[in-house]
Amino acid sequence: MTTSDARPAPRIDAGRLRASLRQLGRVGSYLDPATGLEGVNRLSLTDADAEARRLVTGWMEAAGLTVRVDAIGNTFGHRPGRDPDAAPVLIGSHIDSVATAGIFDGCLGVLGGLEVVRALDEAGVATARPIEVAFFTEEEGVRFETDMLGSAVRAGRIALTDALALTDRDGVTLGSELDRHGCRGPHPVDGPPPHAYVECHIEQGPVLARAGMDLGVVTGVQAISWQEVTIRGTPAHAGTTPMELRRDAGVAAARLTLHLHELAASGAVPGLRATVGRHDTSPNLANVVPQRVVATMDLRHPDDARLDRVEQDVERYLGHLAAELGVEITTRRLVRTRAVAFDDHVREVIGSRVEEAGYRSIPILSGAGHDAQEMATLCPAGMIFVPGLHDGISHNPREESTPEACANGVDALLRTVLALADG
Amino acid sequence: MTTSDARPAPRIDAGRLRASLRQLGRVGSYLDPATGLEGVNRLSLTDADAEARRLVTGWMEAAGLTVRVDAIGNTFGHRPGRDPDAAPVLIGSHIDSVATAGIFDGCLGVLGGLEVVRALDEAGVATARPIEVAFFTEEEGVRFETDMLGSAVRAGRIALTDALALTDRDGVTLGSELDRHGCRGPHPVDGPPPHAYVECHIEQGPVLARAGMDLGVVTGVQAISWQEVTIRGTPAHAGTTPMELRRDAGVAAARLTLHLHELAASGAVPGLRATVGRHDTSPNLANVVPQRVVATMDLRHPDDARLDRVEQDVERYLGHLAAELGVEITTRRLVRTRAVAFDDHVREVIGSRVEEAGYRSIPILSGAGHDAQEMATLCPAGMIFVPGLHDGISHNPREESTPEACANGVDALLRTVLALADG
Repeated sequence: MTTSDARPAPRIDAGRLRASLRQLGRVGSYLDPATGLEGVNRLSLTDADAEARRLVTGWMEAAGLTVRVDAIGNTFGHRPGRDPDAAPVLIGSHIDSVATAGIFDGCLGVLGGLEVVRALDEAGVATARPIEVAFFTEEEGVRFETDMLGSAVRAGRIALTDALALTDRDGVTLGSELDRHGCRGPHPVDGPPPHAYVECHIEQGPVLARAGMDLGVVTGVQAISWQEVTIRGTPAHAGTTPMELRRDAGVAAARLTLHLHELAASGAVPGLRATVGRHDTSPNLANVVPQRVVATMDLRHPDDARLDRVEQDVERYLGHLAAELGVEITTRRLVRTRAVAFDDHVREVIGSRVEEAGYRSIPILSGAGHDAQEMATLCPAGMIFVPGLHDGISHNPREESTPEACANGVDALLRTVLALADG
Repeated sequence: MTTSDARPAPRIDAGRLRASLRQLGRVGSYLDPATGLEGVNRLSLTDADAEARRLVTGWMEAAGLTVRVDAIGNTFGHRPGRDPDAAPVLIGSHIDSVATAGIFDGCLGVLGGLEVVRALDEAGVATARPIEVAFFTEEEGVRFETDMLGSAVRAGRIALTDALALTDRDGVTLGSELDRHGCRGPHPVDGPPPHAYVECHIEQGPVLARAGMDLGVVTGVQAISWQEVTIRGTPAHAGTTPMELRRDAGVAAARLTLHLHELAASGAVPGLRATVGRHDTSPNLANVVPQRVVATMDLRHPDDARLDRVEQDVERYLGHLAAELGVEITTRRLVRTRAVAFDDHVREVIGSRVEEAGYRSIPILSGAGHDAQEMATLCPAGMIFVPGLHDGISHNPREESTPEACANGVDALLRTVLALADG
């Protein structure tokens, strides 16, 4: 492979990218009764995920990549650079899905990386550094209940032995599922770090589309706090119990829901996002004052220290609420991930390449977690966001980004990778 | 049977009453995993209810009553009066139960009636008017989804043919279940009205116990409104969706819950009781802004016109809420029963007899529905309430009234029936 000035610049093939997304999307597909659309159910290390791994690995090999699998099942396709010993530029994401997914989440980053390699090959472009395309195991965290698991093991945040011992709801270990599918590779999870990491992902939110933007240059990932709140009141007959004698767990849950919503929506804590997404009532009968509500609090903020203070404020609020309403309130920590700011240089490279190509873009903070935040602890990392239709709905068969939007994102990925691999 | 001045006054046997409650409570009993207590599951016209009907009918016959069953399965035990043609004083309630019941709800009124007859027999007391003891079919409304069904048919509010055609969740008709158990009797449902109707029932609330009262003289039954509210918002990612772009069905439900609670608890509408007992969230995931909440509104007030106005106010509030939060809100009527005021004379008789016997009592409004409210449209009717332990918890295996409290209530029933049957 050699380059020549006469040769055309590498070009992303939007149709080929789309076709590969569609083909991968058929693995684990189902007809969604709610939407009438085809959805994807490809939980990590299920038979469907194993089939998807074989499909993508085959595509890597067909594109001339040398495939290597590590001990947690993370899979890397290697394209040599002119300097074979240089640390590679790594393009990655995931191909596992939630139970009611579309075809874009994660897959755009992996198949986008493959499309980058194909475009480079077609244009006969060699790079100084090697380029690698990777998919990480269990990013969604749905089956083994740990988000970004494979990349966290790669980055050293989670120990390999702990990860292999994780079990799903049926008690099946992740390690045994890796073995069953032949996905436990011989390579160590902690090899030398890449030179840089870049990930292209759908936004999964409405910001870019509403702002009329082609792309987003991701500045970082906000800190995330999940807590489960259990409110215990007293069950009582709705007809016979005077209002002043009630200890209504549902009223307490409503107070909490509005307190969190107003804290975030009023701008009292700028940048805070707060959601009560799960709310289970017992005994859940029309004529019984609720005895117990189990709800979740999802709190997110770009700044870790600020989120810590919000958590402390909420803890105090729950104490006041319990005393005022005569209910018992306990909390259980589910998730706490730290905020991540992506590398300034990678952000600048992405920004300048996006601008050079004429895309309208804005800086954007990621509200969701991504493999890139794990990799950011290992090497300079960055992300490119692609807008979605329908306010960016995701984790739903209605998830949709146009072929053009996807191609724009992967074109930006190509330009960024070229700059980083030759820079 | 003749009376003599030397003969002792009839006396309620608290132990015998308790033993009969316990024995009936074993029919359909189960071990409740939540409380570790024995509960009762005796839905109307199940095998367990049929067994209970046979047991109580046998007791009626053993007490010398002539048993008659009508076309909806209401069962009456007749004790002749000195004037065989006089309209009887009817003592009634029900022996069907909810799925997680105690042994007192309904059964105290029926077995209390039987105890009244036994006490009269032991004391050799004859009355001018006949006395009847009845249990009505499907008071709880759990299986065929219509409260006070048997008494409503007896009182003419519900047509017999409609009642017989009601189906349970498996599509089984009430009529076929009556036939299967041999409970469809030859007697018409609309015979001549009784002279008066009296029912002794557990309070199912905390008021009497908290006031330190032995008994309650029931003034009437409040009007009841049940509506199901469906709130439709937009599902959205909790991390990626800015607060100002959300249409959160959970926040709307919380606003509604607090609005109703404050309307009732603030005293803005004196006498109003408001409960959101059922609250189902979709998709009910920690990181998804709720798309839909289906909740119930249980509203009760002693005055029909006032409850009508509250319903209209709530309807307007829902309109404002939908507009403000950008959600769609629809309601579906589940129940609307009118308020009932019990007959002044029967209340006076109960009140004077209770006072004469030295019981501490207060007038009390019933928050729950009872067969007495149906019978009140047919003849003068009244009720006596017995306090319960544990704030009057009911529809729960923890439901408990002391043997003394039960005996007090049935003694008041005896004194009232004697006054009405000889008055």
